[in-house]
Amino acid sequence: MNVTHNEAWKILNGSDDILLLTHRVPDGDAVGSLCALYRVLKSLGKNVRFILDTVSRELMFLTEGLESADFEPKCVVTVDMGDKKLLGDELEAEYGDRVLLNIDHHATNVLFAENTLLDSEAAAASEVLFDMLTENGVEITKDIAMPLYVGIATDTGCFRYGNTTAKTMRTAAFLMDTGIDTATVNTDIFDTKTKEYFALETMAMNSVKMYFGGKCALLMLTKDMYRRANIAENETKSINALPRQIAGVLVGITVKEREGGKYGISVRTREPVDASEICALLGGGGHRQAAGCELTANPRTVISTILKYTEEALKEQKLI
Amino acid sequence: MNVTHNEAWKILNGSDDILLLTHRVPDGDAVGSLCALYRVLKSLGKNVRFILDTVSRELMFLTEGLESADFEPKCVVTVDMGDKKLLGDELEAEYGDRVLLNIDHHATNVLFAENTLLDSEAAAASEVLFDMLTENGVEITKDIAMPLYVGIATDTGCFRYGNTTAKTMRTAAFLMDTGIDTATVNTDIFDTKTKEYFALETMAMNSVKMYFGGKCALLMLTKDMYRRANIAENETKSINALPRQIAGVLVGITVKEREGGKYGISVRTREPVDASEICALLGGGGHRQAAGCELTANPRTVISTILKYTEEALKEQKLI
Repeated sequence: MNVTHNEAWKILNGSDDILLLTHRVPDGDAVGSLCALYRVLKSLGKNVRFILDTVSRELMFLTEGLESADFEPKCVVTVDMGDKKLLGDELEAEYGDRVLLNIDHHATNVLFAENTLLDSEAAAASEVLFDMLTENGVEITKDIAMPLYVGIATDTGCFRYGNTTAKTMRTAAFLMDTGIDTATVNTDIFDTKTKEYFALETMAMNSVKMYFGGKCALLMLTKDMYRRANIAENETKSINALPRQIAGVLVGITVKEREGGKYGISVRTREPVDASEICALLGGGGHRQAAGCELTANPRTVISTILKYTEEALKEQKLI
Repeated sequence: MNVTHNEAWKILNGSDDILLLTHRVPDGDAVGSLCALYRVLKSLGKNVRFILDTVSRELMFLTEGLESADFEPKCVVTVDMGDKKLLGDELEAEYGDRVLLNIDHHATNVLFAENTLLDSEAAAASEVLFDMLTENGVEITKDIAMPLYVGIATDTGCFRYGNTTAKTMRTAAFLMDTGIDTATVNTDIFDTKTKEYFALETMAMNSVKMYFGGKCALLMLTKDMYRRANIAENETKSINALPRQIAGVLVGITVKEREGGKYGISVRTREPVDASEICALLGGGGHRQAAGCELTANPRTVISTILKYTEEALKEQKLI
């Protein structure tokens, strides 16, 4: 059932012994909204626990000072979750069917929780949470403002993406008014790369090849590159953005070698090319401008296959 | 003389046959504030001219529809200029001493104009211009909002840098309320690289070497690299940011080969290292976290020299 900001706030106030959860491989919005909500609930005198999957280096500071008590929760609250599957098998089995409240912003939300506070116009779950808190008169202190800011900034690519609205900017302004040091945080999150990532990115850029008169760029990451750069695939998601950044590229493809002869393929497009259409033909899916699929074949076949479907998509639109 | 928003607005209203100028190699704020002011003055029925140095590809759209009439100006107005020297020799000689009004945000402004509207707390000249317009009841239409947005977004690294205040965010929100398409503009400006730049960046990343236990990273661009990537040095300024982006790096050095055996050196630092101190010892200067100098020597000597001074700066702070 969908609930309003006020109803969600009442549900939280009427609860105790609360377990907070969010999706696996938590991004800035997941960690930010969870940490902010934790602090709010503690300030209300609630008994609060949380479980977080591995938090990346640049977001670790948000969890400082948070102590997860150990108790059997009476209720479960989730943030930034479109589907209970995103909890991962173990947590889903244990808690997936007993989520009292989910605070989210994904238009694709499947309403798995007993109560869902959903605003799909919001740029981030942190923005939804902010609205709920301010509409109910909760004072936004610095230690609540910082995780909310990080949640909003990360989900909008630091206010660059199309999900950034005028309201998003005003929310950020309100949070900045509390005196949080956003410049340092932005540098850490948006302007810093580990030397491992930098090494892999260099190899990735060296591997870029252009096709179809510059309308397609393809880069390939091999297991050997991961090994040489000393980095795991799950730390390399930003690489997927690289090929499409080249001016004139309408289809940016990233091929990542996985175990067992499998290759993960990410396709990012610009209008009018539909990435999800290309990937659907190969058993994958996603959004119009960012989609993916997985192929099992030798690398040469993988590349020729994805290029063939890309060529067809470009021809269909009379772009080549 | 410093003037208020109201006084500046009166000066503009009392003028006609106006020539608008800004600094050479104009950035987004220079082009944005000039184009916005042009449109405002035209809407007041003024006769307006402008002179712009080469505008980079991603900013060209701002000047569309602007027609620079040809007439002998009765007065000159400049934007985003801390010093008349920035006009370049020719324009400085002709107009440098007859600037009626300068609208700026640089704390280092030398007050060269007859009247200066200066707000050094503002993130961009475009933000100063916005304040002047709104305080004087000027309606901000989409064609004025877009250049102002671009000016503010580019000078703040899309709201990432330390000059971004809560007020900056609210100004951007106001501009977005007019309905301008900021997402497309942000992609073009912040998420797109020419294939020439991409090629040079790849070579630059390949050249990165780490020193002093990872506290210093140095990259080198040679004339041969510029030639191979088919790019000019003045299009490669963003490269200077790369070495310091690596986690743990306190001193990021970029060495660029120039004509006549000269090497331009850019030094970017993190606290507590002072870049301007290192560069001052080599005849250069700049800011605490971004400075530069030029050396004439063979490349090996250039590198060993800048590394020696870097080592001393790190030792002085007991960082190595």
